[in-house]
Formats: sequence, structure tokens, C-alpha cells
Amino acid sequence: MEYYIGIDSGGTKTEFILADAEGSVISRAVDSGCNPLDIGADPAREIILRNVRQLDAAAPGPICSIYAGIAGANHVDMHLETLLAQELGGAVVRVEDDRRIVVSSTLGHADGCGMICGTGSSLSIIIGSEPIRQVGGLGYLIDTGGSGYELGQAGLKEACRYLDGRGEYTVLADLITKALGKKPWDSLANIYAGGRSYIASFAHTVFEGMEMGDAVCRRIVEESAYKLSELTFAAEKYFPDEFPVVMSGGIFRAYPKYVQLVCAKASPKARMILAVVPPVYGALVEAMWQNGRTADAAVQRNFMGSIQRLESRVN
Amino acid sequence: MEYYIGIDSGGTKTEFILADAEGSVISRAVDSGCNPLDIGADPAREIILRNVRQLDAAAPGPICSIYAGIAGANHVDMHLETLLAQELGGAVVRVEDDRRIVVSSTLGHADGCGMICGTGSSLSIIIGSEPIRQVGGLGYLIDTGGSGYELGQAGLKEACRYLDGRGEYTVLADLITKALGKKPWDSLANIYAGGRSYIASFAHTVFEGMEMGDAVCRRIVEESAYKLSELTFAAEKYFPDEFPVVMSGGIFRAYPKYVQLVCAKASPKARMILAVVPPVYGALVEAMWQNGRTADAAVQRNFMGSIQRLESRVN
Repeated sequence: MEYYIGIDSGGTKTEFILADAEGSVISRAVDSGCNPLDIGADPAREIILRNVRQLDAAAPGPICSIYAGIAGANHVDMHLETLLAQELGGAVVRVEDDRRIVVSSTLGHADGCGMICGTGSSLSIIIGSEPIRQVGGLGYLIDTGGSGYELGQAGLKEACRYLDGRGEYTVLADLITKALGKKPWDSLANIYAGGRSYIASFAHTVFEGMEMGDAVCRRIVEESAYKLSELTFAAEKYFPDEFPVVMSGGIFRAYPKYVQLVCAKASPKARMILAVVPPVYGALVEAMWQNGRTADAAVQRNFMGSIQRLESRVN
Repeated sequence: MEYYIGIDSGGTKTEFILADAEGSVISRAVDSGCNPLDIGADPAREIILRNVRQLDAAAPGPICSIYAGIAGANHVDMHLETLLAQELGGAVVRVEDDRRIVVSSTLGHADGCGMICGTGSSLSIIIGSEPIRQVGGLGYLIDTGGSGYELGQAGLKEACRYLDGRGEYTVLADLITKALGKKPWDSLANIYAGGRSYIASFAHTVFEGMEMGDAVCRRIVEESAYKLSELTFAAEKYFPDEFPVVMSGGIFRAYPKYVQLVCAKASPKARMILAVVPPVYGALVEAMWQNGRTADAAVQRNFMGSIQRLESRVN
């Protein structure tokens, strides 16, 4: 039997799986995010190597192929391919950013777009097996349009604008003060300690406010959905006709109304598909593909059944 | 003769001065920023104590009073007052955030507002010797409306929106690609290493583009100026009539047109004053005030003359 390792690393967590050639997950590990722009190349490399060693030790036979999709890996050279090849002598090794696996998880090793909306956001275009273009997604200091971080940030901003006497009334002032237990400016130390993922957690107050009929919340959600939908228009010129866009990430999973708004505003040529398979499955698809195998429907079925059993055992 | 220490710490640098009772600066030191939300309480405290020790050693007599205005000091307890009192036995010690000194530098120890626009932005309201309210200014993760960071960030965003096929043409695509030496997304590692102050440095491309007649740049500058001017309306209710607003910070010093736009949109009750005296002078004003002395025009004159001589010696 052949054994594969797949890795998916986003801004907040990294998921590692060891699977056999039928897609059954033998072992799974979750660690913190490995974006080298966020935490530096050395700590990121250490997390990856430590977990890969553990999965390798747990494998009934040698690893034949490993694929790692790591956010930010295209911007900082971590020398991971060399190190993983040394660690797993004989295995086919590939390290890329996390753009391809979103598409591969749902469409297999095929052309299409992947739209990620979690703490950050981006749209990636995959053509002829290559991630040829990323639209948006320049990270939290520059551009995370429509992301959970931007939704939560906008909620905090508008709550403060009302509370400090600048802006119009919004129910966010109450919802966020209640969630924090005090006024936002008395919670700054907590907010900064929690960072972007904590700020993204306030996205729920914006959606809650919209449900309550709050105009400020409605505007935030509409503008955010527009920023995401806009990304699909930049993809049009890369496809002759209709093209698939896989929507992936925690914000899409949590807020179906948001998915609907993004779809409604997207390019008419974009066929929007909400991902139900986790991106780490895309890493397995790629690990198999670079070993000459195609992950078919049976592989995906085995993966989903086995990973759900592993997850429920952990939780 | 009495000797005073004044400290001004913003997001990017900290300025320390040792002055005599006539306002003449005897010694000056510049170190990195000490915002404890940014760098943590321990490193911030170490920078402050190290520099204070050096100034104390350089003083011809004992320090009678020290005032430290440190951005973020109201959100994290650094125990600095106790440590400084131990260090400078007998001196009157006060540590606050940096809100008051912007006002004090220009208006003396009097009521008024201080609008800061550098890497970050905020408006502070000082009434009856107390900084009773801060409007805006929740830091880079939440709210820096109209700041250099937000101007530069907006410039980078709009350049990328055009370059990756989302947005309308803007000359920023050329100006920023030229400034970076390559496309923004090929410069992400540099941009993130440089951080917010590096991003703020791109504000100049936005002003340059506006001078060239670029509509996107004009919109960014107008919206940013509006966000700053809006802060003054929140201050209206704290003053019965006209109130002074001291405008301070690198962006105001560098771009007179921006100052004009903010003034044009500000509350009609706000008397806008561009600061020509550095905030660290406000720290000296406060150090003298808490020792029962008022810094008069002669003190300010002595300060400005002596600090200019010291600065020119350093540079």
C-alpha cells in the first residue's frame, strides 16, 4: 500500500493528514498556522517538520508523496522541499502556497478558481495545473476585503464611531459592548492580545445586527460581499466561458446569507460552489496526482468517512 | 537650577529631553517607539529606563520633575511611575499616554483638543487638566482613519485592484510599482518586514497622484481628510463655544494640502492650529507644571533654539 501526507496551513491553523492510497485517513494532526509572513520562516518550518516526523512514524509503510499548501510560502523561501525530501527519502515532495488545494479539494486536479474567506480573503486562479494569478489576498496589513477580519474590524469601528460621538446609531454599539463586557476602548489590551482572529470573531455581531434590521450592519455586509464578488470579475479573462469558483473558509461555512450575497453579486460567468470538503483533502489530491494517481469519487468518500471518525474521536 | 525630563513616545520613535528651568535643552535622545500594545510592556519599560538613566547622569543637578507621554500607556500598566520614582528619588513623576502633550506643546497647560496624524491617528479632548476623551485612535488593527498608514494602505490596495484586474486605472499602479521596484505582490515580504511605518511611507504616492490629477488618489485623500475632520464634531459637546484643535504629526507637517482639506471639512466651532513645536515640548510643559511652574513664551523660545542646535549637531 502507498502512503501520502497532505498539509493545509492557513493563517490560524495547520492541518496534517496521513492517508493510504484509497483515501482513508490513518492519522491527523492540527497545529498553529505556519504562514512565514506572520510567524517567521524558522518557527513555521519547525512546526511542519515536527508534525511530518510524527505522521511518518505513524505510517505502516514509507511515505511515497507529500504535498504542503502553506499560506505565504510563495513569499518567503523556507527551504522546506529540501528538508522534507531529506526527512522522507524517496518521497515526491512539493511545497506551495495554499491557493491550489482549495480548488483541488472540490474539483480534483483541474482548472478553476478558489475563493477563500476566513480571517483573510483572496481568489486564486488555477490554469493548466499552475496557480497563475492571485487576486486580492495581500494580507492583513494591506488587503483582506470581505474577510472575517474586515467584517469584525468594521463592526468595531462603527460601534466606536457611534459610542465616541462621530457616527450614526448602530445596534453594534450594544452587541459589541455586550460581547466584550465593556466599552471597546476599555478592551484594547484584550483585543490586541487576541489579534486578527479575535477581531474576526466579531463578524457574528455584524450578521446578528443585520438580522435585527440594523442599517449600518447591512451596509458593512453588503460592501464586504461586494469586495469578494469583485474578485470574480478579474478572473473572467482567464477562461473562455463559464468557470468554477470554489468558496472555502470559516466565514462562508458560518454565514449562508453571506454566501448568497457574494454569489448574487459575482460575475455571471462564475459558477459558484460552496466547498463541503476541507482544503486538506486538496493536499491529498495533489500528493496523489504528483505520484501519478487521480483521486476519484471513492477516494473522496473514504477520506470524508475516515476524517469525520478521526475528528469526532478528537472532540 | 532645576532640571526636568520630558518624554514623547509615539508608534515609531521615542524622544527624551533634559532641560533646565529656562527651557534650554541640555541633552536629547531618540530611541524606538515604546507603545506597550505594539512591543510589550517589558521592552517598552527597558527603553524608557535606559534613556532616563543616561539623561539623569548627564544632568548638572538632580531631576526635580519628569513627565512621560507614552502612546498606549493607558491600556497596559507598565509600573513606570514607581520605577521612575525609585530611579529619580525626590522627583515628581507622571506617566500618561501621549494625548495631553500634543495640546500642551502649543497651548500650554490649557483645555483643547489634539489631533495626531502620523502612522496612526486620533483626537484627544483635554478639559480641566484631564484627557477626558479620545475619539478614534484605536490602533492599527481597528481604526486609524485618515492616518499615514491608512493613506499608504489605500494606495497599495488601489494599485493592486487595478493591476490584478479588479479596479479602475490609477496612476498609483505606476507610482507604487516604481517606488517598490516591482509589482506589489512580488514585494510582500519587504512590505511586511517594513510594517506599518513602511506602508505609511507610500502616502506620498497618493498625494503625488492627486497632484497629477488622478481621480482615485483624489478620492483616497478626500475620504481620509473627512475621517479626520469628523473627529472634531465629536468634540463639540465638550466646549460651550469655539475650541482649539492642535494638529500634530508627520503627515500634517509633510502635506500642507492635506491640512487645508481637513480644516475645510472640520467643525465650524473648531479653531484648527498646525503645531510647529514638537510634542516633546508639551512633556516639558507638563513636567514644569506639576512642579508648580508655568512654561511661558521665553521658555518655549529657549526650548526651540536649543533643540534646533542639538538636532543640527546630531544630523
